Amino acid sequence: MIKERNVQRAPFCEKLRVLIIIGLMKIEGGYIVKEKVQLHKDAFLQELEEFLKIPSVSAVEAHKDDVRKGAEWVAKSLENIGMEHVEIIETDGHPIVYGDWLHAEGRPTVLIYGHYDVQPPEPIELWETPPFEPVILDGKIFARGATDDKGQLFLHIKALELLKKEHGTLPVNVKFCIEGEEEIASPNLGPFIESNADKLTADAVLVSDTSFIEKGQPAICTSLRGALAMEVQVKTANSDLHSGAYGGAVPNAVHALVRLLDSLHQTDGKIAVEDFYEGVPEPTEQLRKEVAEIPFDEEEMKRELGLDALFGESGFTFHEQTGIRPTLEINGVSGGYQGEGIKTVIPKEASGKISCRLVGDQDPQRVYELIGKHLKKHKPTGAKVTTKQFIQAKPVVLDSQDPMIQRAADAYEKIYGVRPLFPKEGGSIPIVEVFARVLEAPVVLMGFGLPTENLHAPNEHFHLDNFEKGIETICEYLQSF
Amino acid sequence: MIKERNVQRAPFCEKLRVLIIIGLMKIEGGYIVKEKVQLHKDAFLQELEEFLKIPSVSAVEAHKDDVRKGAEWVAKSLENIGMEHVEIIETDGHPIVYGDWLHAEGRPTVLIYGHYDVQPPEPIELWETPPFEPVILDGKIFARGATDDKGQLFLHIKALELLKKEHGTLPVNVKFCIEGEEEIASPNLGPFIESNADKLTADAVLVSDTSFIEKGQPAICTSLRGALAMEVQVKTANSDLHSGAYGGAVPNAVHALVRLLDSLHQTDGKIAVEDFYEGVPEPTEQLRKEVAEIPFDEEEMKRELGLDALFGESGFTFHEQTGIRPTLEINGVSGGYQGEGIKTVIPKEASGKISCRLVGDQDPQRVYELIGKHLKKHKPTGAKVTTKQFIQAKPVVLDSQDPMIQRAADAYEKIYGVRPLFPKEGGSIPIVEVFARVLEAPVVLMGFGLPTENLHAPNEHFHLDNFEKGIETICEYLQSF
Repeated sequence: MIKERNVQRAPFCEKLRVLIIIGLMKIEGGYIVKEKVQLHKDAFLQELEEFLKIPSVSAVEAHKDDVRKGAEWVAKSLENIGMEHVEIIETDGHPIVYGDWLHAEGRPTVLIYGHYDVQPPEPIELWETPPFEPVILDGKIFARGATDDKGQLFLHIKALELLKKEHGTLPVNVKFCIEGEEEIASPNLGPFIESNADKLTADAVLVSDTSFIEKGQPAICTSLRGALAMEVQVKTANSDLHSGAYGGAVPNAVHALVRLLDSLHQTDGKIAVEDFYEGVPEPTEQLRKEVAEIPFDEEEMKRELGLDALFGESGFTFHEQTGIRPTLEINGVSGGYQGEGIKTVIPKEASGKISCRLVGDQDPQRVYELIGKHLKKHKPTGAKVTTKQFIQAKPVVLDSQDPMIQRAADAYEKIYGVRPLFPKEGGSIPIVEVFARVLEAPVVLMGFGLPTENLHAPNEHFHLDNFEKGIETICEYLQSF
Repeated sequence: MIKERNVQRAPFCEKLRVLIIIGLMKIEGGYIVKEKVQLHKDAFLQELEEFLKIPSVSAVEAHKDDVRKGAEWVAKSLENIGMEHVEIIETDGHPIVYGDWLHAEGRPTVLIYGHYDVQPPEPIELWETPPFEPVILDGKIFARGATDDKGQLFLHIKALELLKKEHGTLPVNVKFCIEGEEEIASPNLGPFIESNADKLTADAVLVSDTSFIEKGQPAICTSLRGALAMEVQVKTANSDLHSGAYGGAVPNAVHALVRLLDSLHQTDGKIAVEDFYEGVPEPTEQLRKEVAEIPFDEEEMKRELGLDALFGESGFTFHEQTGIRPTLEINGVSGGYQGEGIKTVIPKEASGKISCRLVGDQDPQRVYELIGKHLKKHKPTGAKVTTKQFIQAKPVVLDSQDPMIQRAADAYEKIYGVRPLFPKEGGSIPIVEVFARVLEAPVVLMGFGLPTENLHAPNEHFHLDNFEKGIETICEYLQSF
């Protein structure tokens, strides 16, 4: 339950203050919201902490029940703020939570999307505080999911709660569609959207799952890379072999794997898979100009990330490499003895995890096949190579000039005093492409994270400053209709 | 305690039987031993099971106390069979067990070496029965250490027990020097031998820690490769990074590691480290001929190991590759996300374990430095590379014509009916080189394992047939002086 500290006496005081400064800002505007957010901040954070405590790791089977708890938590929260038709919809994987409020006659309908699942917390030992025991420190809340995406999803729930409490009604019709499989590429939400297009129909899809350019500089992302994630497994003998007795004369699964993985890139950073760049558009002068406008300080970035040097595809800038060019990254590798000291074995198996970010007309299935073909061609003697696919998502490009997006830009500018930029995001939110295509509605990627908030990494956190201003911005946006 | 089932009535019956068949074989010879071994086999195996239950994994700090238990078990066993001056000698690592019996005046002194430590059992999930719960199945005893080296060491203890019980004395002077650090390359036994050369002085060093060529074909190894084991660690950023936000523009520790590890070999199987082959002798025609005599069936080996193909340094046969050529094997690799499914991170660190087998005049320290130089030269942009050394052992070559070795060949021939071959072993027993050099005594590598017994791998086992004949052969050898 929400702790409504001082809630009885607050409205009068606030309205009084607002009346005094009338003329400086409109009564229904940001100021009241700001006061309200301040008033309820501690209670809100306490509630968010409950949400963050649920280890809803969608990628790991052992967390299945925890993911369900995440869904139940969201459903309960939607009911608490007066959403109707709240339901936990079963899928072949983790459930989808739906809820709506459709009484703003003649007003547009906004569909709010977010996800209650989180990335695995590993490597646990690198967290300074436990990933599922939220801690507020130095103006930030630390926990897995703090910024991606529980914290950001929570902003919408709280914004609507405030608006509803203040006015007894909402300025727009609202639908919530919250999933628990975003971190595993939404295998079930896509089909759900396709077969429930009428139920979900909306004038805009509002998503807070992206980041600012940097602190104080908001951004509305208008391009998301597609994604493909897969695993390569190499097997050689039917048992690990003694490196003395057999060393030098039999295939070694780790040798074969490192040879295969290394073969995927040229030394200039280009991806060596034949036809990989098929469908990647040559960047126009206009696009390169737009990307070049995003501020970038190489020295600062190197310092911040603890890097000796940056490294990427030759001939492209950092923001081009991460925004408009495709990538192939090895996310993990494993094989043979990994414990303390040494064990002189010839490993019989090894595996690597690979993910690609795709752009333009690159098709994830086609790229998966091209990589498979490459691996087959480069297969070292004696290695048995298999692949397995986890994630597929098509790239998407949104129109920054769409009124729904421009209106969001206005809301940011009002609250932050700075107009957002329109960056090309390197990450993938696979479902965005489906929403845009099936609902034929603009998707507004109204993010409140910061790129330095360690999303997908240890010590993930969310800045409380954006927590507060985020709620204000969403209220401002919804009230603008 | 040893279960002495039917021990009272046995001697008379046996001697009677022996007298009956007098003329077919000598009274003091193999036949009595064979009967004795049969008589005590169950009790012996029960005792060996106790030994195998101790998880004396020397490489893992958490097993320190278990390794000590292994030492205590050996000391107790030596006392039980009448060895004198039995002591557990402390070192900077795991203890050495010493014991002797020096009352065979005018007879030679044999120093018996073995080790009571074992390899780590990982990967545990591939064991069909738990590694430290010995099971006898199908004429084999399964457990970590069954063949390497607890089972083989145990043969000597039992052989001396039988001889002592039978004759009340021993045919030779005996010294036991049993260590607990062989699997981590004997860091403390070398210095111990150097500073206790007088105490350990012997006419031959007897070691059972090697294998037959195949079932029924004994072998006395006369060449052991040297060894070098090390770890390479690569670091890039100070945190794992999101592959969407940074993918394609920053160094990836796993990319860098696979590039480095792959660079260590050419495609023809030769090691690509500059000057690596320095000190490797060109094999003489005589040596190649000797190696070619060792039987080898490529198809059979492929079937047995479950391999599609063999793979090694071009221009050399299997037995040359494993016996007289140096190697560089990757024993393990690890980095980034290794759990179920996918985690789209750019790993900040990764590491690989490497071991080399060395021959001729290759010096482990020099090779370690050459690899370090190679890694530095091939270091990808943005990677911070460090190395750590675990093991060093010099190669050793023994003279197959030495009388002590020829006498061992006679003993094998008597018991097995087949004269042993003299193979060049691919493995390393680092301490052999030290024994040979410091004690100036021939080292007799009288192994009773089989190459198929999964040493260093899951489901390690030891054939009971060689368990019995092994004890007989050792008795035969010691009685031959």
